[in-house]
Amino acid sequence: MDAALAGASSELIQDLVDANHILYHLGVVDGFGHVSVRHPGDPGIFIISRSMAPALVAASDLMCIRLDGRPVSHNAPAPYLERFIHGEIYRARADVVAVVHSHSAAIIPFGVVPGATLRAVSHMGGFIGESAPVFEIRESAGPNSDMLVRNNELGSALAQRLGKHSIVLMRGHGSTVVGSLNVRQAVYRAVYAELNARLQSEALRLGTPVYLTAGEAAGAAQANDNQQDRAWNLWKREVQRSSSS
Amino acid sequence: MDAALAGASSELIQDLVDANHILYHLGVVDGFGHVSVRHPGDPGIFIISRSMAPALVAASDLMCIRLDGRPVSHNAPAPYLERFIHGEIYRARADVVAVVHSHSAAIIPFGVVPGATLRAVSHMGGFIGESAPVFEIRESAGPNSDMLVRNNELGSALAQRLGKHSIVLMRGHGSTVVGSLNVRQAVYRAVYAELNARLQSEALRLGTPVYLTAGEAAGAAQANDNQQDRAWNLWKREVQRSSSS
Amino acid sequence: MDAALAGASSELIQDLVDANHILYHLGVVDGFGHVSVRHPGDPGIFIISRSMAPALVAASDLMCIRLDGRPVSHNAPAPYLERFIHGEIYRARADVVAVVHSHSAAIIPFGVVPGATLRAVSHMGGFIGESAPVFEIRESAGPNSDMLVRNNELGSALAQRLGKHSIVLMRGHGSTVVGSLNVRQAVYRAVYAELNARLQSEALRLGTPVYLTAGEAAGAAQANDNQQDRAWNLWKREVQRSSSS
Amino acid sequence: MDAALAGASSELIQDLVDANHILYHLGVVDGFGHVSVRHPGDPGIFIISRSMAPALVAASDLMCIRLDGRPVSHNAPAPYLERFIHGEIYRARADVVAVVHSHSAAIIPFGVVPGATLRAVSHMGGFIGESAPVFEIRESAGPNSDMLVRNNELGSALAQRLGKHSIVLMRGHGSTVVGSLNVRQAVYRAVYAELNARLQSEALRLGTPVYLTAGEAAGAAQANDNQQDRAWNLWKREVQRSSSS
Repeated sequence: MDAALAGASSELIQDLVDANHILYHLGVVDGFGHVSVRHPGDPGIFIISRSMAPALVAASDLMCIRLDGRPVSHNAPAPYLERFIHGEIYRARADVVAVVHSHSAAIIPFGVVPGATLRAVSHMGGFIGESAPVFEIRESAGPNSDMLVRNNELGSALAQRLGKHSIVLMRGHGSTVVGSLNVRQAVYRAVYAELNARLQSEALRLGTPVYLTAGEAAGAAQANDNQQDRAWNLWKREVQRSSSS
Repeated sequence: MDAALAGASSELIQDLVDANHILYHLGVVDGFGHVSVRHPGDPGIFIISRSMAPALVAASDLMCIRLDGRPVSHNAPAPYLERFIHGEIYRARADVVAVVHSHSAAIIPFGVVPGATLRAVSHMGGFIGESAPVFEIRESAGPNSDMLVRNNELGSALAQRLGKHSIVLMRGHGSTVVGSLNVRQAVYRAVYAELNARLQSEALRLGTPVYLTAGEAAGAAQANDNQQDRAWNLWKREVQRSSSS
Repeated sequence: MDAALAGASSELIQDLVDANHILYHLGVVDGFGHVSVRHPGDPGIFIISRSMAPALVAASDLMCIRLDGRPVSHNAPAPYLERFIHGEIYRARADVVAVVHSHSAAIIPFGVVPGATLRAVSHMGGFIGESAPVFEIRESAGPNSDMLVRNNELGSALAQRLGKHSIVLMRGHGSTVVGSLNVRQAVYRAVYAELNARLQSEALRLGTPVYLTAGEAAGAAQANDNQQDRAWNLWKREVQRSSSS
Repeated sequence: MDAALAGASSELIQDLVDANHILYHLGVVDGFGHVSVRHPGDPGIFIISRSMAPALVAASDLMCIRLDGRPVSHNAPAPYLERFIHGEIYRARADVVAVVHSHSAAIIPFGVVPGATLRAVSHMGGFIGESAPVFEIRESAGPNSDMLVRNNELGSALAQRLGKHSIVLMRGHGSTVVGSLNVRQAVYRAVYAELNARLQSEALRLGTPVYLTAGEAAGAAQANDNQQDRAWNLWKREVQRSSSS
């Protein structure tokens, strides 16, 4: 295991491993996507898996990376190409302690259709608020990029577009959510952002939805934060059963 | 186990535990949502799980709550925040013996789009009748609530909106169904309300559906009530297999 | 086991039991729906489960029923209320040897929206041909029925609407498919009618589909009939694995 | 095992068997569909299963077929009727080393609606590029075919329509994707073509999508090719767990 992980509690490590498995179990990530936590002992470092499918991640696959994207250890394994998503968001947002990047399917359409804005249509998506920003990589990388956030400049542009929001959509690619409490909150948000997108898409086919007001969204987000372990305990049981079957 | 549960038969307790597991197995609830039954020995009390994910509920997690939301036992565990949904419906509707509250996904769009009315489009949804009412919490709680039915006043307003119906939609939140026969009927209704919503959404995309008449809806609801154990026996087998795998 | 089953081969019995399990496994039936075969030794009798969920059917649950809906044995268990669907179709169609009745979800919208006609949009649905008829029970049972085909008159009206087709939709209820080769063909058609409905719904959202011509539909249906055991063998393996897990 | 398989490595054989199982596990094929690889020792031969459901294929079911569709061995088992899809594409495209033919559901609507063009809407579908061609079998087989590519002439017409693309849609039938690296790439493309179709359908309901430019599509396709084993390793683990449960 990465020596720089020494300062992280076993509970944090376990939560991060569970987070990888839960995100796969719930269909938020497939072979791609990643989740990280800020190192509790050094805000200039985050913990994330080496480059591999989240469902297969074990504690021994975790590594420490500096905010500029350089692995801490000299003999580190190959990191994710898009680790700059994580590093630059942690750099720009001192309040953020966990980040999930995914290609979850219901959100992507809201990122590719100008004028379609993801917003809170149900209380479980309250953290999305009145509108989710969209990152158009063409503005930074030009019209012929490979769509990946593969350097600090692109990561910084993404973080800027995220601003103070909890989620940023990435055109033709996916989305990234952040948590300010812990990795469980970031997982919760990734799961319910996807569900909110599905509900919103369906509602838009029926007519013009009544969305949550800014006050309702903030209130519901707070209420859900207080209850998030109810879902986490269920999800953890599910991935444990799945892995032992 | 809660001492106030003494008057409830072991069959009732088992049905309520099964109901929790079945609602999760069929996707009606996830980590959130709850199901209750009125106490057979005291109409002023209902039985419900302590605050936890329905899929994980065991008989030892059940507790008794008075219609005003106060737990019967002094050393009761933490109850669901939204127990007032149950208590106030039992208070307003002497005929109701079971209540399911959920965020099932296909129903929510009908609750947020003005003019989109959930109604019986197939015989399995006959109990919905010609229109399902929608509870707009803003009318009672103002424009900045956290969307939750967290006190008697909101529970009472919800029960009033339910009226004599079998289901009430909750804007930006979910829905609540009731049963007058037993908890199996309430579970049956929660499952098929969700399915009816899915069928109705699909039909609306094809054109203007022919809905069930009031007579057809009432007839089909009665016929289904007589057959509900055919589904219950299947669902019970499914959750038993799932828990032993 | 029903004494009248004596003339049926063990292979036929096994296929009918498998058919029940396969239709559930593939989501064509849930707790409701039923499948039958005409008795190979007496065209005036069909074999079907007693009234229960298809997924739970064993060989000992099968019973023999005359075309008018009367069970052959005096001490027969309770039959399905809607056995008249089967009996009257076998009576009207000498070529039919198997019948599946279900509420499969993607088909129902085509039965409730006037002008939306289910037809073959992919070669796997060739047996549907250029249009599937819709049975409107109100024309026979009036505006206040319970929607069920619960007597010979309604069964006969349904069979008349089926005509020479392989499938008939039932407004606000479901659909019924027939097979002229064996029960495997009827199961195949029930599975792919549902899939064709899903494909057609999606295609209609994109624009105006090019449907199969009558010649293409007939040709594809014939080609598929010759290959149906490729699917059956897979499905049988799946339900065997599922039941032993 | 087919003697002509002697020149193929055990790794290649295992990948082809895994490909069959993975395509089923991910819902790309059901009882129908097939996957092949060009023989590494003889470009005039390809390796494919005998005619059976992909999920059930074992190494002993593989056989060698010449590009004109004739099995290499004299005592070969029954081959797929549509082996001409594979043979004629290998003949027309020297760069192609693997082919997947399927009826995956989200793609079919794009093949039947004139004017609806499947194209890359997310980076995972970059290989689709700016438009996927559609093969209209009527142009070659007339208005009354059985829709199957059952001879060399139809296979050749399909290969011509494929041109230099990575995917060709088949009207009212399905689609065929090719890989120039290995069978893993063809599987990857079959999986993500289906997902791209689903995303594009959803996006089209929200409005007018911003698609990937030709440059973005090419860049993303290249980046994904470099990462494809991350998904393959996951999928292989999944089918192994599934088969041992």
